Amino acid sequence: MQGVNFERILGGVCAPEGFLASAVSCGIKGNGELDLALLYSELPAVAAGVFTTNELEAAPVTYSRKGIAEKAARAVVINSGNANSMTGKRGLADAEAMATAVEKDLSLSSGQVLVASTGPIGEYLPMEKVANGIKQAVAELSPGGNTDASKGIMTTDTYPKELAVEMEIAGNVVRMGAMAKGAGMIHPDLATMIVVITTDVELDADVMQDWLSKAVEWSFNRISVDGDQSTNDTVLMLANGAAFPEGHSLNGEEGELFFKALCWLTANLAMALVKDGEGATKFLRIVVNGARDDEEAVQVARSIANSNLVKCSFYGGIPNWGRIASAAGSAGVTLERGKIDIFIGESLVVSGGEPAGADTRDIEKLLKREEVEITLDLGLGSGSAYFLTTDLSTDYVKMNASEIT
Amino acid sequence: MQGVNFERILGGVCAPEGFLASAVSCGIKGNGELDLALLYSELPAVAAGVFTTNELEAAPVTYSRKGIAEKAARAVVINSGNANSMTGKRGLADAEAMATAVEKDLSLSSGQVLVASTGPIGEYLPMEKVANGIKQAVAELSPGGNTDASKGIMTTDTYPKELAVEMEIAGNVVRMGAMAKGAGMIHPDLATMIVVITTDVELDADVMQDWLSKAVEWSFNRISVDGDQSTNDTVLMLANGAAFPEGHSLNGEEGELFFKALCWLTANLAMALVKDGEGATKFLRIVVNGARDDEEAVQVARSIANSNLVKCSFYGGIPNWGRIASAAGSAGVTLERGKIDIFIGESLVVSGGEPAGADTRDIEKLLKREEVEITLDLGLGSGSAYFLTTDLSTDYVKMNASEIT
Repeated sequence: MQGVNFERILGGVCAPEGFLASAVSCGIKGNGELDLALLYSELPAVAAGVFTTNELEAAPVTYSRKGIAEKAARAVVINSGNANSMTGKRGLADAEAMATAVEKDLSLSSGQVLVASTGPIGEYLPMEKVANGIKQAVAELSPGGNTDASKGIMTTDTYPKELAVEMEIAGNVVRMGAMAKGAGMIHPDLATMIVVITTDVELDADVMQDWLSKAVEWSFNRISVDGDQSTNDTVLMLANGAAFPEGHSLNGEEGELFFKALCWLTANLAMALVKDGEGATKFLRIVVNGARDDEEAVQVARSIANSNLVKCSFYGGIPNWGRIASAAGSAGVTLERGKIDIFIGESLVVSGGEPAGADTRDIEKLLKREEVEITLDLGLGSGSAYFLTTDLSTDYVKMNASEIT
Repeated sequence: MQGVNFERILGGVCAPEGFLASAVSCGIKGNGELDLALLYSELPAVAAGVFTTNELEAAPVTYSRKGIAEKAARAVVINSGNANSMTGKRGLADAEAMATAVEKDLSLSSGQVLVASTGPIGEYLPMEKVANGIKQAVAELSPGGNTDASKGIMTTDTYPKELAVEMEIAGNVVRMGAMAKGAGMIHPDLATMIVVITTDVELDADVMQDWLSKAVEWSFNRISVDGDQSTNDTVLMLANGAAFPEGHSLNGEEGELFFKALCWLTANLAMALVKDGEGATKFLRIVVNGARDDEEAVQVARSIANSNLVKCSFYGGIPNWGRIASAAGSAGVTLERGKIDIFIGESLVVSGGEPAGADTRDIEKLLKREEVEITLDLGLGSGSAYFLTTDLSTDYVKMNASEIT
């Protein structure tokens, strides 16, 4: 998707026609912060979703996974401050009760509401507070509620994350918007990450699911803060067709443009999630070229992105390419040492598997930047991939040693 | 191996008959510390070895792997302060030159010397210093050189690690000794770890290789400090038969006793390596029972042991069992939530996949201990495994952000 760029617009999840949002503080977090967000589509919407691969998925994931199979939704309710995870049958009943409460308060049919939760694992939801919160959130729904909603889903994030884009399709302005939360256990295959994407384009549910899965693979599955996977990761997408009151199916070219916009949106959100990773001081982009295939390139890039030693050395600004090589070598991919080149920024540090004699002071200067690119050429084929991550800082440890998130 | 215990004796690698050792400071580290260790067997010895699985293995690993195939050795030379890794053909020639220098100075035949290196990756060895060091080390070989040798192989270790044991076999006292270095990137499949084991028993090379491989699997492959793998990990074992001047092949029962002693020795060394893990303040033992098989139990235990979030929470002493469950769930093993029990120390925190209502203050008290045991029962079968690790501390990050190791 490199080289494609789109114009950012305001409005987040409410940028597309026919979407309202709100958020309230209903007492789940207990500190007065917004902790329940609601998104509502005035028109019936088709829905798609991508969920955690953690074997112990949380109750709302189980509930929404089933909901997504129906391919239609009118609303999404999300609480922060409690993951409703490892909560057994009561947790499943609570997730369903959240959906039912929204259905009742918005006069929707059964099965039209998706649910997500984020926060500490292993506590039952305070359902009375949640039910009151839902009532209030329904009453406060508005086309300007997007930023509140993006705040209502935050946990350890330091700022809310919204993004929206518009483009012209068939003479109409169409829009796509999103909100996201991350921070904590950001990792490929989605970890304590919640993303909601809206659009007023009319889409076939299966096509949208396919596009969303691909866009997630190339964005949220290529980021890592600490290598852990959460039980609650959820990416949802709703398309309500409001931009085309008389209906319009995207043709091939229009579909391509829209898919590119979706990839641009998810890639930018992924970058924002990484940059807000807990305690991060540096943003690392690992690029692996010359692999036998893309899959092996991903494996090598992921191994480097997940190496604590690599991440610590970038926090300290020390040009230790040996740790990069070591992490590449333990990725489970067959390599040929003599063919490997490694760059830190523009500096060639390893050439043909041996020290390239780069000036250490040049690299130390590069490492003072807030964004550093590490590029490997494995010399084995044309497979390539990238991975985004951060350094590992003492603040990361402090945050995760003191906060129960 | 639980329930089996052996008497520790002094003497490290020189405890068995016929082994001499020494170490010198030859200027590789450049700070006056011992940086070259030598071990010599007065009698021909059979040899076995287990090496890193990192694709980019260092030159000395390539050299010694070939040497081990010959199944016989008289000496081992090890330098610290330089890994001789990612050094191409020159590195291979340097590893061979180290062995040749020892052969020459000790009047040994070609192929009778094994080599290992540990330290930063990507620098060529200062061969003149190394050659002088070898000359000096040969001159200083003595039956009391074991502790010097164990210091000569250290990098970021805070103390030298030696262990020896004796037992009676066929009316003779036989001994087994070892030295080990670890700290840095300790991880299963061996990482920046060097271990040398000596014994004066007479052993068949293939039997010894089989026993060593098993003992390594149950000890050094069950420990993790930061999940990274080094290019240099090496475990070597030499048996010279000196305890039986007239020869003696171990019978079944004797072999069993000796193998148990080997497992006891490697398990204790593994524990010492973990306890000296960089910046560690707590020692964590993860036990997984009730898995479908031992392999799945190892996978789940490893996933928990490698979770930064779990390790940070133990550093902070916060009783966050949700992170343990989440790490178990992302191990790639199919689980049944409703069957999972989790204990922190003796406290049941999860029962049948749901909060067991344990008193948080009780657990906080448990977490103040220096050693904490986490036990999972997956309720799926009789597979079990353990994994040893440490907490993740701000000191770990500081050490790895400032030191080039």
